[in-house]
Amino acid sequence: MNYTTLSQRIETAGHGLCVGLDPDPAKLPAGTDLASFCIGIIDATVHVAIAYKPNFAFFEALGRPGWDALDAVTSHLRTLSQKPLLIADAKRGDIGNTASRYAQGILQVMGYDAITVAPYMGRDSVEPFLRDGKWVVGLGLTSNPGADDLQQLALLDGRRVYEAVADAYLQWGSPENLMVVAGATRPEALGALRDRMPDTFFLVPGVGAQGGSAAEVVRHGSFRGKPGMGLLINASRSIMYASSGRDWQAAAATAAEDLAREIQTAYRG
Amino acid sequence: MNYTTLSQRIETAGHGLCVGLDPDPAKLPAGTDLASFCIGIIDATVHVAIAYKPNFAFFEALGRPGWDALDAVTSHLRTLSQKPLLIADAKRGDIGNTASRYAQGILQVMGYDAITVAPYMGRDSVEPFLRDGKWVVGLGLTSNPGADDLQQLALLDGRRVYEAVADAYLQWGSPENLMVVAGATRPEALGALRDRMPDTFFLVPGVGAQGGSAAEVVRHGSFRGKPGMGLLINASRSIMYASSGRDWQAAAATAAEDLAREIQTAYRG
Repeated sequence: MNYTTLSQRIETAGHGLCVGLDPDPAKLPAGTDLASFCIGIIDATVHVAIAYKPNFAFFEALGRPGWDALDAVTSHLRTLSQKPLLIADAKRGDIGNTASRYAQGILQVMGYDAITVAPYMGRDSVEPFLRDGKWVVGLGLTSNPGADDLQQLALLDGRRVYEAVADAYLQWGSPENLMVVAGATRPEALGALRDRMPDTFFLVPGVGAQGGSAAEVVRHGSFRGKPGMGLLINASRSIMYASSGRDWQAAAATAAEDLAREIQTAYRG
Repeated sequence: MNYTTLSQRIETAGHGLCVGLDPDPAKLPAGTDLASFCIGIIDATVHVAIAYKPNFAFFEALGRPGWDALDAVTSHLRTLSQKPLLIADAKRGDIGNTASRYAQGILQVMGYDAITVAPYMGRDSVEPFLRDGKWVVGLGLTSNPGADDLQQLALLDGRRVYEAVADAYLQWGSPENLMVVAGATRPEALGALRDRMPDTFFLVPGVGAQGGSAAEVVRHGSFRGKPGMGLLINASRSIMYASSGRDWQAAAATAAEDLAREIQTAYRG
């Protein structure tokens, strides 16, 4: 999905809701397994989701059966008539030779549109993922407690490390093929990052279970003068585990619709 | 394998040779597949290798058949009577919740002794991998061309980013459970890192195909006053692809023995 199509979809929907798939074996509703639970969540939310983001770790944690489940979920995602953006949350980062292998496996063989990538190894760890019609989603400013440890360190030239990473992303890729992970839990920093990257899509985790506010994200993180645009806002746990009872699919649908409406309100507000 | 045992093995062998397993489908010797090629390399080098490091990307690139091959290679590594250190070169890095999943999958289910981890997300992306009897191998100063882009940036406090990362690793873990990736291609920087981390094992890529010299690595990177100690020196391509002919196993054995001897010579002077 290219930049224009993604922008149009978000504008039409009034939100860029991304549903994260982080299936926890300890929280599966009765009668489901990893794959059928994820597929059930997808089917319950596909009328509203703009993107899906399976978190590879939750599948890989189980070894082979987990990969079987990821395969089944990926196949299901690829057959959806709505054609949502498919983001592989795999946070790969390695040198050229090796990065090309990951890119091949995840973007070509598995068929994802986008992959999350870590920047620590530099340009040649990111460039192999820049492929026609595909997206790199580079870690920028994350929403976890440890984000400060490295990302917020002050550089001699006045920038923070995450700002230097943002500047590098703009050199390595372009807004047409590289988006950035920017956490919801610090709206002001999100705004500073937006000033630095005016046309770059942000994938924003941290809304919902992690405490970020969708309204604040829209206010600080949107393209300037275009509220709600330029943002894929991800929620995982608050949708997947909205109910542990027999109504888990209906509850997930409602949670997704509620979050979409919350973003729309901030957007159209 | 704990710190004392690993130290003793390196001291007894006179080298810490790590054989990297980066199987390229385009370079398989006739009559082999991904798994049988890797197993053949393992069997040809197990009399000399202290550690093995499968590069997960090369397996994941193929999707499911690649995972089948990684499974077979992992099973073979786990049954070796020599009990080498098994390093999963997976370069995972994610937040606590997710990192725990990767740690579970790779260190517990797959049974690796160690896993390479990226530091960009901070403390809570590394700590979940610190488990009893296991090792984190944190990216420090890598040997690829893009390493300068972020790792060498100058901080306001006088350190480089990679030095701040090294200091953080010493806080997050200890020399008993955390080693650091330190590239062979810049021996002086390796020496500076050794001054900063006197007791920490370094996993050193970049010898051989990437142009680093084993003698220089030993001179600059060893524990001070203990030449050759504190180093796992990795070679992948120069061993795996020593010959593309029918003698590929014999050639791999010779390449591994030659590199081990080169390290021993530098070590024993």
